[in-house]
Amino acid sequence: MPDDGDTRVRAVCPACHTIHYENPLNVVGTLPFWGDSGEKVLLCKRNIEPRKGFWTLPAGFMELGETTAEGAARETDEEAGAVIEMLGLFTVMNVARVSQVHLYYRARLLSDTFRPGHETMEAKLFEEHEVPWEDIAFKTVKATLETYFSDRKRGHFGTHAIDIA
Amino acid sequence: MPDDGDTRVRAVCPACHTIHYENPLNVVGTLPFWGDSGEKVLLCKRNIEPRKGFWTLPAGFMELGETTAEGAARETDEEAGAVIEMLGLFTVMNVARVSQVHLYYRARLLSDTFRPGHETMEAKLFEEHEVPWEDIAFKTVKATLETYFSDRKRGHFGTHAIDIA
Repeated sequence: MPDDGDTRVRAVCPACHTIHYENPLNVVGTLPFWGDSGEKVLLCKRNIEPRKGFWTLPAGFMELGETTAEGAARETDEEAGAVIEMLGLFTVMNVARVSQVHLYYRARLLSDTFRPGHETMEAKLFEEHEVPWEDIAFKTVKATLETYFSDRKRGHFGTHAIDIA
Repeated sequence: MPDDGDTRVRAVCPACHTIHYENPLNVVGTLPFWGDSGEKVLLCKRNIEPRKGFWTLPAGFMELGETTAEGAARETDEEAGAVIEMLGLFTVMNVARVSQVHLYYRARLLSDTFRPGHETMEAKLFEEHEVPWEDIAFKTVKATLETYFSDRKRGHFGTHAIDIA
């Protein structure tokens, strides 16, 4: 663990001399599914930049004091107004280029009625062949969707560590 | 994802008016093992506070621009000087009380010679019955060690999501 042997350049506030460490950020979200065999997934059409108009899984920055699962459930409520049962940790993805780690959980939808928040134009269920693959907002969302449909075919859901270029 | 509908209280620098978001921190590390059946694990006796004199797995804060695996390998080199082959993501642990996420990878030791850095008094291999369970520095380290020996007995290593109270 770090101590005062720190050798990195850090930003220091000119007024209060506090060292402002810059650290990687966590993005947490869910892959909400619907149907007897989980054949449909919930996507949200983004109403905000970046990637406005593109489709995403409900996700956002993890906040202080919450677990990754709690943050993922919170974002699912805020962005989709979806009622879910949280299941296992599904993807842990490194996006080192922007110093982010994205963590997605599988989540069983308990209703197919949604109340999207202001960040979302539309929340909609898609079967695999209906997914707008060309209009997915982020690589981590595409990787999580692909891994879901792949695991679903082999009949077993694992926890997957993936590096995103 | 967050936009300007932000409703949280944020710290603002009085000089530059930059908003200093405070976010959860990631701690990344390894569980380095040795022996034909991975019967020994590497622990480091801490030479720095907090928990000076207690035993830990090599781990530290994830830095900008690196993946969780790269950070875990870096800390293993810095704290233990251990030569390893990185294997799979092993534990993902939420410590919400302190807004941290700890991620540990299994790592095969390629040598049983270590060059501990200044943060470590001693780096040493332990079989399960030799582990100083009462002198383990952190709950996340204890949970990772217990999960390792448990998975080893059942003959299969998974990826485990654990909440630490």
